[in-house]
Amino acid sequence: MAESWSFLDTVESKFRPLVVIELAKGTKEETIEWFTKRIVDKKADGGAQLLIKPLVTENGHENIYLVGASHLRLLLGAETVGLVKECNDNSMRTFTYSSRKTFKDFADDNHNFLTMAECQYIIKHELDNLRAKNEKMIPGYPQAKLYPGKSIVRRLLTSGILVQIFPLHDREELKKLRHSWYGRVRVGYQPLDDIRCYFGETIALYFGFLEYFTFALIPMAVIGIPYYVFAWEDYDKYVMFATFNLLWSTVILEVWKRICAILTYRWGTLLMKRQFEEPRPGFHGVLGINPVTGREEPVYSSIKRQLRIYLVSLPFVCLCLYFSLYVMMIYFDLEQWALDYHKENESNFSSLMLYVPSIIYAVVIEIMNRIYRYAAEFLTSWENHRLESSYQNHLILKVLVFNFLNCFASLFYIAFVLFDMKLLRQSLATLLITSQILNQFAESLLPYWLQKRHSKRMKQRTCSQKTDIDLSLAEQVNMEKEMGTYLGTFDDYLELFLQFGYVSLFSCVYPLAAVFAVLNNITEIYSDALKMCRVYKRPFAEPTANIGVWQLAFETMSVISVVTNCMLIGMSPQVDALFPDSKMDLVLTVAFVEHLLLAIKFIMAFVIPDKPRDIQMKLARLEFESLEALKQQ
Amino acid sequence: MAESWSFLDTVESKFRPLVVIELAKGTKEETIEWFTKRIVDKKADGGAQLLIKPLVTENGHENIYLVGASHLRLLLGAETVGLVKECNDNSMRTFTYSSRKTFKDFADDNHNFLTMAECQYIIKHELDNLRAKNEKMIPGYPQAKLYPGKSIVRRLLTSGILVQIFPLHDREELKKLRHSWYGRVRVGYQPLDDIRCYFGETIALYFGFLEYFTFALIPMAVIGIPYYVFAWEDYDKYVMFATFNLLWSTVILEVWKRICAILTYRWGTLLMKRQFEEPRPGFHGVLGINPVTGREEPVYSSIKRQLRIYLVSLPFVCLCLYFSLYVMMIYFDLEQWALDYHKENESNFSSLMLYVPSIIYAVVIEIMNRIYRYAAEFLTSWENHRLESSYQNHLILKVLVFNFLNCFASLFYIAFVLFDMKLLRQSLATLLITSQILNQFAESLLPYWLQKRHSKRMKQRTCSQKTDIDLSLAEQVNMEKEMGTYLGTFDDYLELFLQFGYVSLFSCVYPLAAVFAVLNNITEIYSDALKMCRVYKRPFAEPTANIGVWQLAFETMSVISVVTNCMLIGMSPQVDALFPDSKMDLVLTVAFVEHLLLAIKFIMAFVIPDKPRDIQMKLARLEFESLEALKQQ
Repeated sequence: MAESWSFLDTVESKFRPLVVIELAKGTKEETIEWFTKRIVDKKADGGAQLLIKPLVTENGHENIYLVGASHLRLLLGAETVGLVKECNDNSMRTFTYSSRKTFKDFADDNHNFLTMAECQYIIKHELDNLRAKNEKMIPGYPQAKLYPGKSIVRRLLTSGILVQIFPLHDREELKKLRHSWYGRVRVGYQPLDDIRCYFGETIALYFGFLEYFTFALIPMAVIGIPYYVFAWEDYDKYVMFATFNLLWSTVILEVWKRICAILTYRWGTLLMKRQFEEPRPGFHGVLGINPVTGREEPVYSSIKRQLRIYLVSLPFVCLCLYFSLYVMMIYFDLEQWALDYHKENESNFSSLMLYVPSIIYAVVIEIMNRIYRYAAEFLTSWENHRLESSYQNHLILKVLVFNFLNCFASLFYIAFVLFDMKLLRQSLATLLITSQILNQFAESLLPYWLQKRHSKRMKQRTCSQKTDIDLSLAEQVNMEKEMGTYLGTFDDYLELFLQFGYVSLFSCVYPLAAVFAVLNNITEIYSDALKMCRVYKRPFAEPTANIGVWQLAFETMSVISVVTNCMLIGMSPQVDALFPDSKMDLVLTVAFVEHLLLAIKFIMAFVIPDKPRDIQMKLARLEFESLEALKQQ
Repeated sequence: MAESWSFLDTVESKFRPLVVIELAKGTKEETIEWFTKRIVDKKADGGAQLLIKPLVTENGHENIYLVGASHLRLLLGAETVGLVKECNDNSMRTFTYSSRKTFKDFADDNHNFLTMAECQYIIKHELDNLRAKNEKMIPGYPQAKLYPGKSIVRRLLTSGILVQIFPLHDREELKKLRHSWYGRVRVGYQPLDDIRCYFGETIALYFGFLEYFTFALIPMAVIGIPYYVFAWEDYDKYVMFATFNLLWSTVILEVWKRICAILTYRWGTLLMKRQFEEPRPGFHGVLGINPVTGREEPVYSSIKRQLRIYLVSLPFVCLCLYFSLYVMMIYFDLEQWALDYHKENESNFSSLMLYVPSIIYAVVIEIMNRIYRYAAEFLTSWENHRLESSYQNHLILKVLVFNFLNCFASLFYIAFVLFDMKLLRQSLATLLITSQILNQFAESLLPYWLQKRHSKRMKQRTCSQKTDIDLSLAEQVNMEKEMGTYLGTFDDYLELFLQFGYVSLFSCVYPLAAVFAVLNNITEIYSDALKMCRVYKRPFAEPTANIGVWQLAFETMSVISVVTNCMLIGMSPQVDALFPDSKMDLVLTVAFVEHLLLAIKFIMAFVIPDKPRDIQMKLARLEFESLEALKQQ
């Protein structure tokens, strides 16, 4: 490849802005000069060999820079990040510059071979990999230390010189995407491939999962409706419904893995080699030698981290869980009080009052969840994980446990301590519907409204009556840099996870939950799409091959729901009546059925292959080819 | 590499016999000529470029051939099979001829760089990969069809022309190994690295597991002894013991994964790339194109195979399981009869008779297991699996289920239908001890005795009084070719698996089981070692990175034992007495504890990393290097 890089020296191409870099106001000239030089420097000199231009607006120079790259540079970058593209023979292969002619749609003058999101991902990767050589500090900022191999962009970000770095929207493409995604009212699939091209694989996979999950819930919803319509209370029917639900939830989670493999194979990320993970931006420690790379970088003792996790984070999480249970007990007191009040003075007002405690509790839960989230982020960041993925896993675990308890503890209490099925159904309905409405509001509508108001004011200030597409580049950049930052798919998955809990944990008590879930998800698709296209800055594309830890979380939920549903059915008076003589027999039968269902679940999960046969074949073929190539070497 | 092969043309080296090929008596000259020519032909001409010599004995030519290879040829072969060796900097790397100088102990004249087992593995790999070019059949045998790409050795084996192919023992090395392994009476570890050098990774890993498992059982055995000595019948003590057992069994299985990673990292197999799997010898079908390799080879419809599995094999297995249960019921009738007999005429003879049904049943079980094993092998072979690994998995599954039922059904029946703990303890002891004695006898002592008698007769025939080491090559080959063939570690693992079942499933009833298991395993190590060194032909080394499906089998057993132990404890009168008022509370408490234990097990299995940190680091380092190398390319 060393020779290929030299091509670049002579090629001069039209500048197309892809990524925006915003530096802090008042950044020293010396720093800017050094940074831009490092960005345009040749690869051989340790630079990124990208193109950079300052953004000139009416108000002059605002420390905003646009980064682009020549077509050839992007192709070489695609090879560096290990992009996988489709070949002329329809197989997926890792792109290399030397074999570029064998790829589908490749032509030296076709600048659309790489999607804009891919180009932006490549530029981000190159910027992140721009490393200090022998600089001891950032020029002009002696407190911002550097050491050989430290990522310059990350140091600039942590020292506040670099305010933000984000990819530009493509107004035209976005308009097309909006139209095909949610622009017209119609029933149909989302344009997942277009979403992937525009937003990258992580976000497309979330929308794919959301869509799949909604479709998968439809059978449950359809079977659930007659229970409500005909007020079926026969427990044999509930047993049928619960059994169907439990096996169905296993099937859908297994089938999702297969669909996920099909999608990510088509997108190339299933084959993409995982890159070596750099320390996350917030990681700190004394300078040492990384045993893997042999590079100098901060090291932090793993034992210290374990101590922080087990001696501080774990007790704190337990305390929060205890507090959450305490709040729950207050809720039950309130509930009792409302019931007493209703009994004393029966009126419309008092019957309305019956719903108040549940609504208050739902709101309090939402607030507690949000506060805890900040605490969890702070704690996990303080635990000082070296890798972003490890940080994410610890954060997800903390938040999941708390959210699970917060959302479901009261339902467990009602079901297995109070044994009050009527109250359980009522609470379930209130919690589910309240949390869905709150979420939709807080997640999409509120930011959309704020954003709308903001951009309106912006437009008024610039006195322009232009539509989005006609905006000049400077106006576009100025508008986008003020938009909120999309923080990843965490909250969206969490919402689905809790919804799955509402649907499956107590499915035999409230079959209508699936109906509400389906209705919510249909609007969720639209509001999430709106959020992505209208409210937030364009996020950088992030290649991914699966939904990661969420698959495990959903599977765990589905195991827990076997236990809860068996207990609920065992406690029902109808099943009770089947064993008039011996409670023992009843409990033993229920326990036996539960173990049987669990065994069937595990066997099903084991027997259903995670990847469809043709994908397995294609992967085997690629592996075989690489082994053969190794032999021929 | 193409150039390297040309080195070979000029190099002539001393012939060292490594592998023996025995052809059928009366094989046509034309066939032999063609076969030997293909073996010595140059790589470029599609040959194996090995050395071959007929074995000349006193009785003349016996269609036995010795295969060897030049040192250089073996080094190039090591590269082809992807052997991983230790470098000078103590890291493990895939051996390549061009980087040979960086490997530890490498010198152009050091012919011990590759162990004899590795050389034999390389030769076997090269022979297996000797493929038909444009031959339509084996010369001289028109019925033995060939097609381009078909393995010649496999066709020769299936058509009976090639009787067997086995690696030669190294008498001197073997004597050393025997001495350090079991030659002297001493307490200590087995020489696993020496075993691995001589027999390869699969067998060394089995002995490693056997040793580890024995050590891991010692704490259970030590805690179990006082229960027997002091005749402790307090159930709180049994609860303690069972809980310890359940958590301990999880820990030991997780820790084994780590130890296995340490061993296989040191041996290089943890890093070894899996080769593309060829069809197994027995696989047949119409000629077609393999979608993975694009080569012409027999193809067999996957649907047909599924039909055979689900419509024939599955019902057959169920029938056998039913039959096994039927035999069990007969056993209980016999048992009842013996008990009645004892009551009627109380005598020494009648009290001895009490043990007779159990012993008969144990013997019948062994016989049924062996018959079923043949049926399972036949059926699995008839299912026509393309891959040896898939064949093995289906065979193991069939045999495991049957053996599990056969060994434990009577115990389950006694425990959970008859509720007779005294009988359970007695049956468990009888079954465990009888099966251990039978196994040791049938597996090692009997073959050893037969082998001894045979080789004695051989020696008498040849009138030689020489010790093993002084035997001439011809005598050695003639003796070894008559020895039994070691059929793999299947039976050995199965025995351990069932033993693990005896120890863990009913541990709270019979704590002494662990003691017997430890005692058995200590002699098992010696008798298995004897078997490997004295009774069987040397097996080909087989690289492996773990114990495969057995890990899963042991883990499943450990999950089942949580359920059985909780049930046993729940049924005990002492625990019963704790809940005088409500049987419900008792059962619910037991169910709760069981779920708690299962949850702890799964969390422990999840939290304990499968590989020790330093191995993880070393693997990460290698991955990082290969990614860097890719970038530099």
